[in-house]
Amino acid sequence: MFPLNTWYVAAMPNEIDDKPLGRRVCGQRLVLFRGPGGKATALEDWCPHRGAPLSLGRVVEGNLVCGYHGLAMGCDGKTVSMPGQRVRGFPPVRAFPAVERHGFVWVWPGDAALADEAKIPDLFWAHDPEWAYGGGLYHIGCDYRLMIDNLMDLTHETYVHSTSIGQPEIDETPCKTTTEGDSAVTSRFMNDIPAPPFWRTALRANGLPEDQPVDRWQICRFTPPSQVMIEVGVALAGHGGYEAPKEKKAYAIVVDFLTPETETSMWYFWGMARNFRADDKALTAQIREGQGKIFAEDLEMLERQQKNLLAWPERELLKLNIDTGGVQARKILDRLIAAERATVAA
Amino acid sequence: MFPLNTWYVAAMPNEIDDKPLGRRVCGQRLVLFRGPGGKATALEDWCPHRGAPLSLGRVVEGNLVCGYHGLAMGCDGKTVSMPGQRVRGFPPVRAFPAVERHGFVWVWPGDAALADEAKIPDLFWAHDPEWAYGGGLYHIGCDYRLMIDNLMDLTHETYVHSTSIGQPEIDETPCKTTTEGDSAVTSRFMNDIPAPPFWRTALRANGLPEDQPVDRWQICRFTPPSQVMIEVGVALAGHGGYEAPKEKKAYAIVVDFLTPETETSMWYFWGMARNFRADDKALTAQIREGQGKIFAEDLEMLERQQKNLLAWPERELLKLNIDTGGVQARKILDRLIAAERATVAA
Amino acid sequence: MFPLNTWYVAAMPNEIDDKPLGRRVCGQRLVLFRGPGGKATALEDWCPHRGAPLSLGRVVEGNLVCGYHGLAMGCDGKTVSMPGQRVRGFPPVRAFPAVERHGFVWVWPGDAALADEAKIPDLFWAHDPEWAYGGGLYHIGCDYRLMIDNLMDLTHETYVHSTSIGQPEIDETPCKTTTEGDSAVTSRFMNDIPAPPFWRTALRANGLPEDQPVDRWQICRFTPPSQVMIEVGVALAGHGGYEAPKEKKAYAIVVDFLTPETETSMWYFWGMARNFRADDKALTAQIREGQGKIFAEDLEMLERQQKNLLAWPERELLKLNIDTGGVQARKILDRLIAAERATVAA
Repeated sequence: MFPLNTWYVAAMPNEIDDKPLGRRVCGQRLVLFRGPGGKATALEDWCPHRGAPLSLGRVVEGNLVCGYHGLAMGCDGKTVSMPGQRVRGFPPVRAFPAVERHGFVWVWPGDAALADEAKIPDLFWAHDPEWAYGGGLYHIGCDYRLMIDNLMDLTHETYVHSTSIGQPEIDETPCKTTTEGDSAVTSRFMNDIPAPPFWRTALRANGLPEDQPVDRWQICRFTPPSQVMIEVGVALAGHGGYEAPKEKKAYAIVVDFLTPETETSMWYFWGMARNFRADDKALTAQIREGQGKIFAEDLEMLERQQKNLLAWPERELLKLNIDTGGVQARKILDRLIAAERATVAA
Repeated sequence: MFPLNTWYVAAMPNEIDDKPLGRRVCGQRLVLFRGPGGKATALEDWCPHRGAPLSLGRVVEGNLVCGYHGLAMGCDGKTVSMPGQRVRGFPPVRAFPAVERHGFVWVWPGDAALADEAKIPDLFWAHDPEWAYGGGLYHIGCDYRLMIDNLMDLTHETYVHSTSIGQPEIDETPCKTTTEGDSAVTSRFMNDIPAPPFWRTALRANGLPEDQPVDRWQICRFTPPSQVMIEVGVALAGHGGYEAPKEKKAYAIVVDFLTPETETSMWYFWGMARNFRADDKALTAQIREGQGKIFAEDLEMLERQQKNLLAWPERELLKLNIDTGGVQARKILDRLIAAERATVAA
Repeated sequence: MFPLNTWYVAAMPNEIDDKPLGRRVCGQRLVLFRGPGGKATALEDWCPHRGAPLSLGRVVEGNLVCGYHGLAMGCDGKTVSMPGQRVRGFPPVRAFPAVERHGFVWVWPGDAALADEAKIPDLFWAHDPEWAYGGGLYHIGCDYRLMIDNLMDLTHETYVHSTSIGQPEIDETPCKTTTEGDSAVTSRFMNDIPAPPFWRTALRANGLPEDQPVDRWQICRFTPPSQVMIEVGVALAGHGGYEAPKEKKAYAIVVDFLTPETETSMWYFWGMARNFRADDKALTAQIREGQGKIFAEDLEMLERQQKNLLAWPERELLKLNIDTGGVQARKILDRLIAAERATVAA
């Protein structure tokens, strides 16, 4: 279950630079490609001639030419031409609103008439020279909401990521969850603790001592449909923590876009935006590699959790205080999905 | 959907030379082996003793001895013997009419009483010393009729096989389709055009210049249940094209036998018979290798087309002029299948 | 179909020495681990917090700590603790009676109130210094009863294991089957025959000549739910066969525990207990390797037999004299399963 009248990240821009990309988003088989002027475009991955996937074709002068018999499809889903044919009566394929912005390709899988580019979230760090971003993409065989739960309850770091970002103080410090309209925020502040390995590296990269006590924070913000931005960082203890001056801390935003593929599988666009040493591309690559390894540790857990849920469909999950973030996120999603259905029914 | 009261190519003879072969044909699990005197034989792949697959056994004096407990099965599907057992009451397994002819093993998956060897197509080139044949076998995850469509509309060569046999002139030249009883023929003649790479090689092999304009032809003949023979060739331009004397052309027949495995998978027996330099075995091997690579280019397209058709089962495909050959072939098949069903019902 | 109120071998002890083991037994997803004092323990592989598989966790002081968020599960299926939580109201998971004995971990997948450790079979050779044991584990995609059939009809050795333990005399010698309460025994005695390769090696290892005629015996004993112990051996001909003095024979017990995973898959714990040169660990390893290769020869046959049975579900299998052992074993199983169901219904 996922809302459809909303923007999802469907691809990283470089995935469609060289050739079309076939990708399922919210159960729909899409082809993503660059149309006229390089504009990101999303259509049903179906050639109206014989049902071949358009994603096996290539882009010629802004049209997507089917790799089977040469039908040229326009970015509006209408056939432009085909060798030796009059194409006016060809049935169109569905075009999905698509926008490239903030370093991602966004797609609106629902009613195109409702698509509003203003609703694409504003990712300030994507345009601020003081910030650098690196990230990647994983396919995971689980309901995207299991990943929302994962990201809204960071006590799992102590167990799943015990050698990098986990530490017992996460478990020992209660989190606080609030909702603001359609957002849910869960936060945890840990003062005067040792920095775990990942943050030691970050402190060192930032020119700070890594063996002194730090104040650490985690502020997870869910925004529908399935975006979780996590402000994370450490400051040398006693300098104000989250509010400490820039030269006393290492601060970043963990970026998570979760895009449903089917009811039980998803695309995980993960990354990290940081505001220290933004020009250091080697550091960006190093952080991306480290983060990629850490986030890969979640995959087996999530996929086997999904299998368990399918095997015991009647069982209820617990909703503890640490789960409040995920529970609130699901309530927001349920409300949006119900509203969508009511609109369709009316 | 496929007719059953007809002959299908089930194997290449060398596939059953050394040991029995298990193969599904038209949804039936068969074991193919050489019975008395080496005769090609087809039975249900089921041992009446405990249901083991007979294809894991071995042939002993013309009987197929089960590899589990030694039951010896005769080529008529009746148990011949079993160590320590009286076998007279053993239930028989179904025997399917099978014939080795023209370099293929043919099986009749329907009513054995209707099987008529005279209906096996006459492949003259298999017995003419002026002709040479080479070919292979692919398994494809698609309805065999998608491959009929593929072979009866060669405009796909321009896109799928652009580096070997494709050229824009195929797209630019209309085809002409006719039906003759249960056959459908679609043909295209292109005059005074450059030869594409595959035909350049063939011209050179045939001792002809490869850089002169040629007349090229493609005559695709569908015969039920799923045989497509394609006369193909090029002649030096202005010498009569298809009718040009032998020393002015390179001429061959693309041989395609499509055998359904299930409703959505098939065996593709492909090959080429040529009537130039028939004695040159190295050339036969070279052509087979080249053709194998070219025909492998179709596999991903066909399998993903099949997935699309399953994902959008309600969608109709277009029937353009280029599709007439496939459309006519399907009409012939539909007629045969309907007639079979009427016979069974009556 | 399998009885549930009985003991099955679920694991080899070393499989749970280092970390928890997830394993499906009789359709149930279990986690096996060593609880307090190293005691073998079996629980549902489900964390009551969020449904994560407990088998991805680790054992800490006898409790199984979930690898996702740190819930500590006790060996009775009740949550012991969780960081920052009161766990008294947490729903328990099911605990299964589990016992480590005779070199195996036994689990009772049915009603725990009925579990009786006295019903675990007595494997005398596991504790007798004159005997040595070696074995392994295979996963097979078939109903466990197909393996019972396999082991209760050793004529298959002539065909499946023709290069090691098979010989035509097995086929030529009738077997004799009896039942004793809930056991079925099928036996075959072959006198004055050549020893096949496996037994030649055993004779040589036992300091006996390998090229003299031998008396060979096979006594297969099925005990529910799915244990088949096969007394096997050869004695120099004319010294009493099975009853020959120890210095004139090579004697062993083939050990087979068949544990259903699902209706169409199973765990095969196989091994051999021998009473010659029990101290020779190199010989134990050599025999295990040889037996592993021989028993692997059955896998393809069993898995393809299973596929055939699923493809032709309406077909009956023959019940010949050689099948009597398996037929009797199934009758015993059917009786036990019916009795279980009657109890549940009442």
